[in-house]
Amino acid sequence: DPAFTRLYQSVALAQTQLTEPKRPCVVTPEVPGPKSRQLTAQLNSYQNTDAVHFFVDYERSHGNYVVDVDGNCLLDIFTQISSLPLGYNHPSIIEATTKPENLLCCLLNTLGTLINRPALGSYPPADFVDRLVTSLMSVSKRNRQLRGSRSYSEEELRSSLMNQTPGSPKLSFLSFTNAFHGRGMGALGMSHAKWFHKLDFPAPDWPIARFPQLQYPLEEFTRENQEEEQRCLDQVRELIETWAKRGEPVAGVCVEPIQAEGGDNHASAAFFQGLQDICAETGAYLMLDEVQTGGGASGRFWAHEHFELRRSPDVVTFSKKLLSGGFFFTEELRPTEGYRIYNTWVGDPVRLILLEQVLKTIQDGGLLANAEHVGQHLLDGLKALQVG
Amino acid sequence: DPAFTRLYQSVALAQTQLTEPKRPCVVTPEVPGPKSRQLTAQLNSYQNTDAVHFFVDYERSHGNYVVDVDGNCLLDIFTQISSLPLGYNHPSIIEATTKPENLLCCLLNTLGTLINRPALGSYPPADFVDRLVTSLMSVSKRNRQLRGSRSYSEEELRSSLMNQTPGSPKLSFLSFTNAFHGRGMGALGMSHAKWFHKLDFPAPDWPIARFPQLQYPLEEFTRENQEEEQRCLDQVRELIETWAKRGEPVAGVCVEPIQAEGGDNHASAAFFQGLQDICAETGAYLMLDEVQTGGGASGRFWAHEHFELRRSPDVVTFSKKLLSGGFFFTEELRPTEGYRIYNTWVGDPVRLILLEQVLKTIQDGGLLANAEHVGQHLLDGLKALQVG
Repeated sequence: DPAFTRLYQSVALAQTQLTEPKRPCVVTPEVPGPKSRQLTAQLNSYQNTDAVHFFVDYERSHGNYVVDVDGNCLLDIFTQISSLPLGYNHPSIIEATTKPENLLCCLLNTLGTLINRPALGSYPPADFVDRLVTSLMSVSKRNRQLRGSRSYSEEELRSSLMNQTPGSPKLSFLSFTNAFHGRGMGALGMSHAKWFHKLDFPAPDWPIARFPQLQYPLEEFTRENQEEEQRCLDQVRELIETWAKRGEPVAGVCVEPIQAEGGDNHASAAFFQGLQDICAETGAYLMLDEVQTGGGASGRFWAHEHFELRRSPDVVTFSKKLLSGGFFFTEELRPTEGYRIYNTWVGDPVRLILLEQVLKTIQDGGLLANAEHVGQHLLDGLKALQVG
Repeated sequence: DPAFTRLYQSVALAQTQLTEPKRPCVVTPEVPGPKSRQLTAQLNSYQNTDAVHFFVDYERSHGNYVVDVDGNCLLDIFTQISSLPLGYNHPSIIEATTKPENLLCCLLNTLGTLINRPALGSYPPADFVDRLVTSLMSVSKRNRQLRGSRSYSEEELRSSLMNQTPGSPKLSFLSFTNAFHGRGMGALGMSHAKWFHKLDFPAPDWPIARFPQLQYPLEEFTRENQEEEQRCLDQVRELIETWAKRGEPVAGVCVEPIQAEGGDNHASAAFFQGLQDICAETGAYLMLDEVQTGGGASGRFWAHEHFELRRSPDVVTFSKKLLSGGFFFTEELRPTEGYRIYNTWVGDPVRLILLEQVLKTIQDGGLLANAEHVGQHLLDGLKALQVG
């Protein structure tokens, strides 16, 4: 219907015709400005607001520029907390919803999925498999197959209900200093970045290895950095042996390809290859946490593609730029019964609709190569500044 | 714009004019039918599908009737897994989006919020406080105020990063047999309903008290049930004392107002009042898990309103029918620093838009009284069947 299309397009056009600002522009004496401060005071009646930077005008934000409710326009090079895959109001996402052939269908689909949020683990909609294949599975690096099941003893089933062995085995998970993996009791127990995440929470006593602290510039400290990484790998092996002797064997090793929350800490491809070898030898699963690094900002869709690992990691976790949270896994880790990995909604199909469009935009725009190119440009500029 | 409105309404009308079917209708020889089985086989290439009942046609489902992709129409008295607050395609939710004055605004608002999912903990949109007040805060049973902060020692901050005391204190949480509280390591450690939730996962060794097993009909077992509840309360007190002596004091007691996943297990108002008294005496916080029971199905918005507790519980958790997950808390439990309770998105404003409409519909339609009325009707019918 032309009238329908015209009206919707005329409104959406205001956003698609926004061009990215040339530079930041601060119009209030300080940031946050008065409107943000007033809204923060209101919100403060209901919850702690120390983490609120300012209130955002999402309609006026564009690309890498965030506009706050006071009209300040700031360069947002972190895309919030690494959570907006294409920046603010990316034209291709808006345009996809304004194409006449997609428009009504897209709006109704989106609203329909919103109104009846499906419990995907038990009652998926008919288009769920297609959406999964064209979104999340299209960025999985590996095919997977099934394994056989194994049976469990009555004692295992009974003791598991009361948190006792053998049903609830005393397994441990190895993590690294300065790591950050999340907020649940297990993920927080593997996080060691900042005290305000951790203080007052009970935490499991699991092994913690040192993450390499490299010296820069890398080319001047080749030997020192190799030795540092070897020391860290030796400690991993030693901790796995110690915890096995304690009767709390290390079931998995969890690591970020680039430590983000705990500092911008990098390690070499050789370090991650060595870590995978130790895991293979000791039977620990290797879990790469790509929540902050996945989605293309490193120049590859997954940061661990830079490491040229000899085997696929056992688990790759994702969230933020992938618009939803989850993990990829190898065939060995596929549950053999239903409800083992399950929750109320098991994700949200609306996010798959959007992710499909995000991935298409990354592909069509060559944004991975662009990230590499711009990253090199930024690095060269920083080096030039350093020399100067 | 009339043309815009007419077109959208004509499509939405097909759904609003659906009337609830008179009875279930199964058209395939078995459920799941061939289309569901085919889709399940496809999904099975990517994940375990044992929990998938059938694939749903969300456009054709209505009220309490779910229509699957094979055209079978089934009575869904559980509204999926207690997760659809008003059943399928409730007319008031659809009509709210088709009112001419709301239509374009609503569509664009919804899409805008979808496209730029805000990290609410740090960058909330301008209308966030209003949305919070008119949705979640409107069903909170209690005002809250601030408390003063306390300072922490250097040793506490340092040791917390390495999961050691005093920063990571050895605190425990008391839960009940047959409880179910969730899937994270802490929540799963307090769950004791079914082995397939639990088996193979390491779990904290925390105290577990017996949940009352009442005998029915209640009026014939008054004394026995009082004694049973008293035994359970005595055990709670004893466990709290024992764990304090072990150096792992009970920080909180977690309980469902009605145990759902672990069986349809009820206890009396007196039991919950007694539990709150023990918590008050011993300094443990009382956390009521209303994830399954909150939202009105009990005839009150929160099931614990039936207990006439003398004080507000310290924490009330919600999800499912509230369309998002979170918790209400007393002033004493408000964090004194930012980022203590935080994650990437901290909820989703789209869900607040919808929740506001859900709450309005419950209010306008007198649905709480209706739930009580229909519940009584159902109970009377069951009792009549029993006598017959």
